[in-house]
Amino acid sequence: MTAPSDRALVPFVSVAQMMALIGRIGLKPMLQGLAAEIEADFLRWERFDKTPRLASHSEIGVIELMPTSDGESYGFKYVNGHPGNTRQGLQTVTAFGLLADVATGYPILLSEMTLLTALRTAATSALAAKHLAPRDAQCMAIIGNGAQAEFQAMAFQTICGITRLRLYDIDPAAMRKCADNLRGQGLELTLCTSAEEAVQGAQIITTCTADKQYATILTDNMVGAGVHLNAVGGDCPGKTELHRDILLRSSIFVEYPPQTRIEGEIQALEPDHPVTEFWQVLAGRAAGRTDPAQITLFDSVGFAIEDFSALRYVLAQVRAGADCDLLDMLADPDDPRDLFGMLLRAKAV
Amino acid sequence: MTAPSDRALVPFVSVAQMMALIGRIGLKPMLQGLAAEIEADFLRWERFDKTPRLASHSEIGVIELMPTSDGESYGFKYVNGHPGNTRQGLQTVTAFGLLADVATGYPILLSEMTLLTALRTAATSALAAKHLAPRDAQCMAIIGNGAQAEFQAMAFQTICGITRLRLYDIDPAAMRKCADNLRGQGLELTLCTSAEEAVQGAQIITTCTADKQYATILTDNMVGAGVHLNAVGGDCPGKTELHRDILLRSSIFVEYPPQTRIEGEIQALEPDHPVTEFWQVLAGRAAGRTDPAQITLFDSVGFAIEDFSALRYVLAQVRAGADCDLLDMLADPDDPRDLFGMLLRAKAV
Ligand SMILES: NC(=O)c1ccc[n+]([C@@H]2O[C@H](COP(=O)([O-])OP(=O)(O)OC[C@H]3O[C@@H](n4cnc5c(N)ncnc54)[C@H](O)[C@@H]3O)[C@@H](O)[C@H]2O)c1
Ligand SMILES: NC(=O)c1ccc[n+]([C@@H]2O[C@H](COP(=O)([O-])OP(=O)(O)OC[C@H]3O[C@@H](n4cnc5c(N)ncnc54)[C@H](O)[C@@H]3O)[C@@H](O)[C@H]2O)c1
Repeated sequence: MTAPSDRALVPFVSVAQMMALIGRIGLKPMLQGLAAEIEADFLRWERFDKTPRLASHSEIGVIELMPTSDGESYGFKYVNGHPGNTRQGLQTVTAFGLLADVATGYPILLSEMTLLTALRTAATSALAAKHLAPRDAQCMAIIGNGAQAEFQAMAFQTICGITRLRLYDIDPAAMRKCADNLRGQGLELTLCTSAEEAVQGAQIITTCTADKQYATILTDNMVGAGVHLNAVGGDCPGKTELHRDILLRSSIFVEYPPQTRIEGEIQALEPDHPVTEFWQVLAGRAAGRTDPAQITLFDSVGFAIEDFSALRYVLAQVRAGADCDLLDMLADPDDPRDLFGMLLRAKAV
Repeated sequence: MTAPSDRALVPFVSVAQMMALIGRIGLKPMLQGLAAEIEADFLRWERFDKTPRLASHSEIGVIELMPTSDGESYGFKYVNGHPGNTRQGLQTVTAFGLLADVATGYPILLSEMTLLTALRTAATSALAAKHLAPRDAQCMAIIGNGAQAEFQAMAFQTICGITRLRLYDIDPAAMRKCADNLRGQGLELTLCTSAEEAVQGAQIITTCTADKQYATILTDNMVGAGVHLNAVGGDCPGKTELHRDILLRSSIFVEYPPQTRIEGEIQALEPDHPVTEFWQVLAGRAAGRTDPAQITLFDSVGFAIEDFSALRYVLAQVRAGADCDLLDMLADPDDPRDLFGMLLRAKAV
């Protein structure tokens, strides 16, 4: 049996290798690098093949495939969302992703994306806030202190200059975990006993709770003028975080409207309620924040292009020598039409 | 850094391991096993979440994601189709697939599927022919002798009792390759110089050519009464093999109509042209062949449930001890909400 050819071998970045990569680059520079990659791709938004992600729902969770292509590279992410998982010691969200060459259809990278999703989500949120939050924002509330929370904190510190964090989680253990992890990162931390307390004085409010229901993490009276809302947790039909009245007072920015109408906070609104595509703000085609008193809302659900950008960032690292494994994933006979002959020569027939 | 837990490790069946598995089971028993698994899943058709596959088209090919779920397991396949690939020594079709647990969203198997697709496609074709072809069929023509051809031949021999094969390919080298590979398998082989010659005396005609156009591999006059057509190659918008008049004379059987209307030979017909879902024939809910003179057509495009069945077959083998690797693909911190802490402990922050 001859060894598989180069083309048959797909570089694979494992969890351990992703941790090593983050360690080598540094979390903050990597968040910045990802935000830059996402911004660059958002600026060429119209070049991408876009479709709402393909979701397979069950009563307790969802499994989604998120493909996109810029005509040269194709990428997709597999991701699940199971809010009940943590009760059995499993994560709410796990993910992996793949890049392929559009010209041949051959995969060129497979990567873990549980960590990478946390990073790209935080980078996207912070990129949006950089353009939408009040200019002088220094204090952020984070409601929901689970797996995503510290990544959000670090991205907002790095990209938006946040210096003070107010934490709240219905589970005090999650809040303590979050605070313990963030100690020593140069953030002033306040642990709160309610969401109401957490939002006091915050110019930015990040919600990243997980619950498969129409939750009301923020009620209308909790959101005052001049605040930026970063709503990360509501990302599925029947799974939202904000009271509808808040939406009616907000200028709403979204990733890809056809997907956000199904999955985002705006599922509570009329299908033609005006929203702004965030990429248009980056491109200077639409206004971001126009008034200090305005309430801005980034109704984040996570879009395929963000994963594409993140995978391309990782591919560039792999090409520059980052550690990875090579997976014998593609059958690659010497004569491409001789798949059967390859089996014969391997004595498998 | 602690080693990843069991849950973080996803069994991965490489190409070499798939070849070894086929070798150990034997190609013919494996084709039978796959056909049985596909039949069993087709018999519980209504339990599956079904959607046309999600295709990303470029001018020279397509990349597709094919998900389905039976409520307990979720599966999807990544597959490309690039008819020009063989010119640069690459295959037209490559694939890999994944199974996950619906209850948690955690992946439980990753597998090569270039080989497995060839096997499952052949098994599905032969299963259909077993119910649709003339009872006494012994002779099959195969037009298009590329990567899929020998697998089709072996499946029809094993499952339908075909003893004589008539081969034709516009590229004589492909035909010779196919004949060489099949020698010694107990099939009587005839190499032909045209498609017209190949179909002489054949009760079953398999077309598995690859060309991104409306090709006419079979013209109307080439298809006589009492023949079964197994049309494998036409599986994309703008990519068909049969003259439309043949379709008008045929009883047409398909996998999943919403997908086949877009991709199959029937894209040439009115959207309400009557077709029969093949699973209904298996279930005794619809008639198969009712008349010896009838022309039956299995307008195969490949449906997600077939890949699901094939992946479940492989998973059962892995659980029974078949060789595989364990991929560190899912970040799995001890406290599921402590993804960031895992990074901290790995000194990656
Ligand atoms: N928008 C995106 O791109 C994106 C990306 C990743 C994750 N998400 C979503 O973000 C959410 C959080 O993900 P995670 O991985 O951190 O989940 P997680 O389960 O690790 O953490 C969720 C936390 O929310 C807390 N919580 C639940 N209800 C609450 C409430 N009413 N008030 C305060 N806290 C509450 C829980 O106690 C838990 O600590 C999920 O819904 C996930 O689907 C969105
Ligand atoms: N229905 C399904 O489930 C399914 C599954 C796998 C592949 N396919 C399709 O089957 C086709 C064949 O796949 P493959 O992997 O064998 O491709 P391949 O490129 O290896 O082989 C195709 C062969 O067809 C021959 N050919 C092209 N035009 C011809 C013509 N006019 N007359 C005779 N021969 C001709 C080529 O010379 C080549 O040898 C592809 O179109 C693929 O997309 C369908």
